[in-house]
Amino acid sequence: MRDVSIIGIGQVPVAEHWDKSLRDLAVQATRNAMKDAGIHTADSLYVTNMLSGVYAGQEHLGALIADFAGLRGIEALKIEAACGSGGAGLVLGYMAVASGLRDFVIVTGVEKMTDTVRAKTTTGLATAADADYESDHGVSFVALNALVLQRYMYEFKVERERLANFAINGHRNAVTNPNALLRFPITREAYLESPMVAEPLTLLDCCPTGDGSAAVVLAPRERAHEFTQKPVHIRASAIATDAIALHDRKRLLQLAAAQMSSQKAYKQAGVGPQDIDIFEVHDAFTSMACVSLEACGFAEPGCGWTLAEEGHIALDGKLPIQTMGGLKARGHPVGTTGLYQIVELTQQLRGEAGKNQVKDARLGMAQSVGGSGATIVTHILEADA
Amino acid sequence: MRDVSIIGIGQVPVAEHWDKSLRDLAVQATRNAMKDAGIHTADSLYVTNMLSGVYAGQEHLGALIADFAGLRGIEALKIEAACGSGGAGLVLGYMAVASGLRDFVIVTGVEKMTDTVRAKTTTGLATAADADYESDHGVSFVALNALVLQRYMYEFKVERERLANFAINGHRNAVTNPNALLRFPITREAYLESPMVAEPLTLLDCCPTGDGSAAVVLAPRERAHEFTQKPVHIRASAIATDAIALHDRKRLLQLAAAQMSSQKAYKQAGVGPQDIDIFEVHDAFTSMACVSLEACGFAEPGCGWTLAEEGHIALDGKLPIQTMGGLKARGHPVGTTGLYQIVELTQQLRGEAGKNQVKDARLGMAQSVGGSGATIVTHILEADA
Repeated sequence: MRDVSIIGIGQVPVAEHWDKSLRDLAVQATRNAMKDAGIHTADSLYVTNMLSGVYAGQEHLGALIADFAGLRGIEALKIEAACGSGGAGLVLGYMAVASGLRDFVIVTGVEKMTDTVRAKTTTGLATAADADYESDHGVSFVALNALVLQRYMYEFKVERERLANFAINGHRNAVTNPNALLRFPITREAYLESPMVAEPLTLLDCCPTGDGSAAVVLAPRERAHEFTQKPVHIRASAIATDAIALHDRKRLLQLAAAQMSSQKAYKQAGVGPQDIDIFEVHDAFTSMACVSLEACGFAEPGCGWTLAEEGHIALDGKLPIQTMGGLKARGHPVGTTGLYQIVELTQQLRGEAGKNQVKDARLGMAQSVGGSGATIVTHILEADA
Repeated sequence: MRDVSIIGIGQVPVAEHWDKSLRDLAVQATRNAMKDAGIHTADSLYVTNMLSGVYAGQEHLGALIADFAGLRGIEALKIEAACGSGGAGLVLGYMAVASGLRDFVIVTGVEKMTDTVRAKTTTGLATAADADYESDHGVSFVALNALVLQRYMYEFKVERERLANFAINGHRNAVTNPNALLRFPITREAYLESPMVAEPLTLLDCCPTGDGSAAVVLAPRERAHEFTQKPVHIRASAIATDAIALHDRKRLLQLAAAQMSSQKAYKQAGVGPQDIDIFEVHDAFTSMACVSLEACGFAEPGCGWTLAEEGHIALDGKLPIQTMGGLKARGHPVGTTGLYQIVELTQQLRGEAGKNQVKDARLGMAQSVGGSGATIVTHILEADA
């Protein structure tokens, strides 16, 4: 087994790309990443995506994107783990290079969620839940997360407004990220008055979906400096799972898979939560950010929100999160979000995050979540020495 | 990098399983494979599937199947490469174990094609083609393959009836395979009189779809004998791709991806076509079997059909194919077919294929094809010494 580094990154802005197809977006991000790495071909392309079959009547994205990105012939396939697809794809890309069987692997995530004629957004997202026991009975994806927050508020006697800073922080950081979808700040008042979506989750507790694509190029660490002055090294790459349906979980508020997956990652990297300089959290909902912080050991159970309330999650706080806007404001094109996190973390660890730069960031963690918490992927990245 | 072996296999019969859900099928095959290997847990479960999102409104199969198979918590995700999904999943499972990062990986394919209310079978299959430039214009999947055969017949001056034995051979072998869908023989007359589906492909040129699930358990070769007396070793595992749309291919009849993928596999295993004792070909259509044989070096261009006409593809021929019925008669539950091939090849190489046993089989090859030839996965397996 050998060490693996990220030698190139690419992305397109998260937006409503009415003028671009799924393939356009993926090709653009892939080519951007290849250009950044200075490579003209690769051994493999792993595409991560959740909903192209349901929304666009298009499966078989591996061969499709490889061909149009100028990579015809190479190994290509698609990896899916609901909204955790991006993270899951990186795990396999990492293993491919670590094994010594592949040298250069591109992992490209893509999701096209506007301009889809075959299914509604909500119908698509519901496929991340248990079709037989959850979604077919009418529980939407927001509703599932609302149930979790209801219980959280009851169990820990916390009011919804304690989560306000998760939304505010994401929006604040998105303003200076040219690839973010919602580039405007929001006030605490706006959060408090936000219309209800599924009680107690309001519009400003929920992240927006969108169209997007993000890509990384992986190479063996010993060759990384041939391609870039600033490789970023993958120190840990771990997946854990839990029951897909909420009612099948042993505990509703503990995010067991986040706990397991972060513990595996800490162990692999030989670090603990106190060593992490940045945490790109999967803030699909403010409540998800809150319980993730707890599950990963950054806060005690019932206290994740205190990190937000006390300002620790800001760019100059002790644990910056959502540094480029997070899912809340950069946007959440579901099957590729995990790769936006990795691209952004790479920008931070290279010192190329512009106005969003976290000072002296050396070790970053990103977590990609599938469904209401059934698949959780954790990566730990390190800046070059 | 370390060598990888198959230490367990499991399957359910390919059938119209009106009484079983997608998860039931996958759980049953997974548990069968685990029982065969004598293991109670694993590091990872890779699920291969093409159409659960489109047909069942269910993505996120990794976590779902892991949980219901008694593997809650482990790494799990889904891999898709159209009808080549099963083969593609095995490539990643192989890499995971080869890398040393995982020891026991289960690769389970599953597809549920009957009892689907959300989309018609043809609509689902069409997602393997180029949605924007092929399927949205009304070209069905059979039609695409019919175009290839039209050209083949014109180019090489071959009549359709020269392909008869591909259908007859599959049906003959399926009779004694308890897991096959169409367990009856067909005559040459029946083939000749078969009703047209898309000219020149008749009903008996086309394989049937179906519901099914097949699974394998992978382990490091050095530990294989702890679990089984008859491990089967993976000597090569290779993917290659081509343009997804027929009109984008440089050559229509050469199956470039099959050529590349088989060459990569031969090189990795250090063997040539002459060394292969059994070839599990992707006979989705008789014409696909014919061109695959040519692309993999078993016959000259334009002559693949001679292997059938001269009887070489029978169980006692020089290159037995479709030994348990092939796609033609075992059936083709698309996203899992590549794993049925691997399970059947393992039965053969263990000497456990019953009445279908190929004598002295030591080296077997299986090829899993996505779309009309855009993704082609080749595996070479070897019997234990």
